[in-house]
Amino acid sequence: MRGQMMNTPLLISSLIRHADRAHGDTEIVSRTVEGDIHRCTYRDLHKRSRQLASAFHALGVKPGERIGTLAWNNFRHMEIYYAVAGMGSVCHTINPRLFPEQIVYIINHAEDAYLCFDSTFLPLVERIAPLCPGVKGWVLLNEKARMPQGSAIPNLLCYEDLVNSHSDAFEWPDLDENTAAGLCYTSGTTGNPKGVLYSHRSTVLHAYAAALPDALNLSARDTVLPVVPMFHVNAWGLPYSCAAVGAKMVFPGPHLDGKSLHELFENEKVTLTAGVPTVWLALLNYVKANNLRFSTVQRTVIGGSAAPPAMIRTFQDEYGVQVIHAWGMTEMSPLGTGGTFKAKHLALGPEEKLAVQAKQGRVIYGVEMKIVDGEGLELPWDGKAFGDLLVRGPWIIDTYFKGEGGNPLRDGWFPTGDVATIDPDGYMQITDRSKDVIKSGGEWISSIDLENVAMGHPAVAEAAVIGARHAKWDERPLLIVVKKPGMDVTKEDLIKFYEGKIAKWWTPDDVVFVESLPHTATGKLQKMKLREEFADHKLPG
Amino acid sequence: MRGQMMNTPLLISSLIRHADRAHGDTEIVSRTVEGDIHRCTYRDLHKRSRQLASAFHALGVKPGERIGTLAWNNFRHMEIYYAVAGMGSVCHTINPRLFPEQIVYIINHAEDAYLCFDSTFLPLVERIAPLCPGVKGWVLLNEKARMPQGSAIPNLLCYEDLVNSHSDAFEWPDLDENTAAGLCYTSGTTGNPKGVLYSHRSTVLHAYAAALPDALNLSARDTVLPVVPMFHVNAWGLPYSCAAVGAKMVFPGPHLDGKSLHELFENEKVTLTAGVPTVWLALLNYVKANNLRFSTVQRTVIGGSAAPPAMIRTFQDEYGVQVIHAWGMTEMSPLGTGGTFKAKHLALGPEEKLAVQAKQGRVIYGVEMKIVDGEGLELPWDGKAFGDLLVRGPWIIDTYFKGEGGNPLRDGWFPTGDVATIDPDGYMQITDRSKDVIKSGGEWISSIDLENVAMGHPAVAEAAVIGARHAKWDERPLLIVVKKPGMDVTKEDLIKFYEGKIAKWWTPDDVVFVESLPHTATGKLQKMKLREEFADHKLPG
Repeated sequence: MRGQMMNTPLLISSLIRHADRAHGDTEIVSRTVEGDIHRCTYRDLHKRSRQLASAFHALGVKPGERIGTLAWNNFRHMEIYYAVAGMGSVCHTINPRLFPEQIVYIINHAEDAYLCFDSTFLPLVERIAPLCPGVKGWVLLNEKARMPQGSAIPNLLCYEDLVNSHSDAFEWPDLDENTAAGLCYTSGTTGNPKGVLYSHRSTVLHAYAAALPDALNLSARDTVLPVVPMFHVNAWGLPYSCAAVGAKMVFPGPHLDGKSLHELFENEKVTLTAGVPTVWLALLNYVKANNLRFSTVQRTVIGGSAAPPAMIRTFQDEYGVQVIHAWGMTEMSPLGTGGTFKAKHLALGPEEKLAVQAKQGRVIYGVEMKIVDGEGLELPWDGKAFGDLLVRGPWIIDTYFKGEGGNPLRDGWFPTGDVATIDPDGYMQITDRSKDVIKSGGEWISSIDLENVAMGHPAVAEAAVIGARHAKWDERPLLIVVKKPGMDVTKEDLIKFYEGKIAKWWTPDDVVFVESLPHTATGKLQKMKLREEFADHKLPG
Repeated sequence: MRGQMMNTPLLISSLIRHADRAHGDTEIVSRTVEGDIHRCTYRDLHKRSRQLASAFHALGVKPGERIGTLAWNNFRHMEIYYAVAGMGSVCHTINPRLFPEQIVYIINHAEDAYLCFDSTFLPLVERIAPLCPGVKGWVLLNEKARMPQGSAIPNLLCYEDLVNSHSDAFEWPDLDENTAAGLCYTSGTTGNPKGVLYSHRSTVLHAYAAALPDALNLSARDTVLPVVPMFHVNAWGLPYSCAAVGAKMVFPGPHLDGKSLHELFENEKVTLTAGVPTVWLALLNYVKANNLRFSTVQRTVIGGSAAPPAMIRTFQDEYGVQVIHAWGMTEMSPLGTGGTFKAKHLALGPEEKLAVQAKQGRVIYGVEMKIVDGEGLELPWDGKAFGDLLVRGPWIIDTYFKGEGGNPLRDGWFPTGDVATIDPDGYMQITDRSKDVIKSGGEWISSIDLENVAMGHPAVAEAAVIGARHAKWDERPLLIVVKKPGMDVTKEDLIKFYEGKIAKWWTPDDVVFVESLPHTATGKLQKMKLREEFADHKLPG
């Protein structure tokens, strides 16, 4: 028997319509590429999204067709989010920090019909346009007056012209909620990027979950500044969740340095911000050097990679900014866990609280999570056992765009590629990447733990640990080290440095010193290359 | 083109499974019918729900079949919620405060296969069992030792026996999310009760929305005591939302007096509670009379009927308990609006803030709301225009159970039966019931506003205003008054009392004094009866 409730599809257009009706005069503030401040409201943004949808409709964009973006966080990017998804097409955000050849691959693989880009990327677009013959038009996100003269880009269009020359009398279509809405490619450490194709349903469900008190805790009293880019998993869903709750939004554009961010925080009375540790490190350095405070920021979400405990402590103890440590993936829309307390933690001392916050947090309702051993058997939530982290739920990937890479699931669960522990209270902590964990005699050794110890040595600039082949144990840890300029340290020193810091059998069997370590375009360590390079490394003994 | 995310149905079983895995040791505390305190955890509750599902399965309960409840707020009632919905059957909560003949009607109309009841209702069940021949068994929610001896009830079963004699090796089935999960009859002021049939999807979406910071703001740091009964629109969804976020729950059983509630608040460190104004009035009187405080309660949700501003003030200013004024209906699962502030309100003075809170609040994302005039044309959100309040969304009724009453919708919108204003910030305020509003010369007059003025007169115990037939104006207001014992007041006094308090043309044309006013079993004023009684009332002039 079916329930007798309304069959209302979960659509992205309902988010912006809601924001318009219930929070029409709430502001969206953007710092433009040129550096000045632009102000509009949810009501304006909804109107212009409908004008833009009319424009794309007039250009012949069909349901399901992809519109690419190479853009910073700003109101125009958000208009594209709502216009393109709302009309039943797919908003395809592209990371401009990738190598140009990867961007070309992605545009052609996605078959983007149009591509919208900020002025910053004009030189990039001039270079790649000839390599992307499928793109029917390149839309520069600016006004007529700022359009370049005599550009070689074929079919260069002016965004503001497009918007202003079309009517807002566009009715959002009544789509099936499983219709594709957004596309984002993952930048793995190997192989070609693969696309994750979000649906209206997954996006709306994620918008609810992300706004919950134990996730990002968003309300109509918040002013939210997403530092995390809109080309990086939809800025963790904030353009959707903020519309759902009517939070004011502040977009920093390309200006992510400490000074620019701090200025926006203060001038716009930002209450919540979100970004990766590297951005926060620069911000904290700037704030400290200039002896500044945060007078309105209450919370900061740290994700993308693990938040160092010292950073959590600095934000909270020195600046009174509560840290929400979160974890997710492009394949997860992205939110999986949020590092908020349970009632039982409220009476803990500061160090015990910090230990809770240093983990990646508790699973948010909607995501199911488990850890499994090499045979796929579920491991206990005891905070000690670590295994491959698997997830499932309505905002988690089923297959990659165009079936790339085949079926990524294991028995209906998505393997995150992370290795983690989960404690009895459900707090998850990532200990390694699945492909980097060292499998020694049937037991697993965390390469990250070993690297963190080595990084604690005063003479070590960077460290990587990989599994080197071993006749008896299959693999044993090999430490690869870049020394700090002018500093020296021996293999024996480093091996001795591990004493008392880890289980004795985890100690690396050997140390190699190198001039530099290989990294991807987005700064990730390429351990795969190290494994190739040191494939035949002969361990001592 | 379809998105490529997991096709995970939104199921009620996922709520209790999540609570078990992520919040397994969080407590569910109940005051039993006998008055003592029972403690269990989400893990226990999940286990016993699976045992109960096994038991119902063994009894032959089929998917879609209804299991009725006549029960207070306690852990067993919550087990029934999860067991019955989880197995694909329908949990049908019945309001024991209805007249017995209405209860019999409801049980037979719903075709309940089994009926679970608390000991309190043993006399009621003994009386109605012979009139409900379709019920295969009556399950007393208690232990073997407390079962009555020699009861005349046919097929009387012991709940604890059922649970304990069945295995927890029950796998929640993978249902379509539109499967019916819960059934609740509305107690209108006229006609037979009509059933609202919730689905898994509507329940899960409502659970997300109700937990949002601008709705009930629920987290794993909360301890929630729902005073609102589980037989009244699923205790406003709290048994679902609390499981989603891992909040501790405290169930008061039948003991809703001020002393019992205050004791539970303090002993169990309750942070959030929810109920109707009458309960809070009794509680506040008790607390005041005994010079007590609330040492842990942070928030109270007031709904069911409008929260008097004086009550909001007392909770907030005298006791430091923040009031969340909310509005909803059985047909809406029930939540529609929540009365929380926007950023712009935070700097207001106490009286201006109170004026915002006295309204029923802002619409929660997922519900769409509009007001229309007599011709169905949408009225502006200006805080002045008032019209029929219509709503739509995925947790709002489509049709009543078994199609009772035909199609209740108007162009896809559900008419709430309320008349309301909506201000430019989206705050809705109910001014009347649609059928009670007085239509005078094409304009509408709020009967509630007129009643409130009359109630402010020191000699008036109770007042009702209805539209009396008028040759020229169609209807004019007629005030019907019960005087306070030993007090006197004249018609002229009362009419003069309206001066300066309302628009002059709203002033009642006449006043009638009566001994008492008619009420329903649940205490609602029956204006329909008054309209019949005074159908031929001759207005002066």
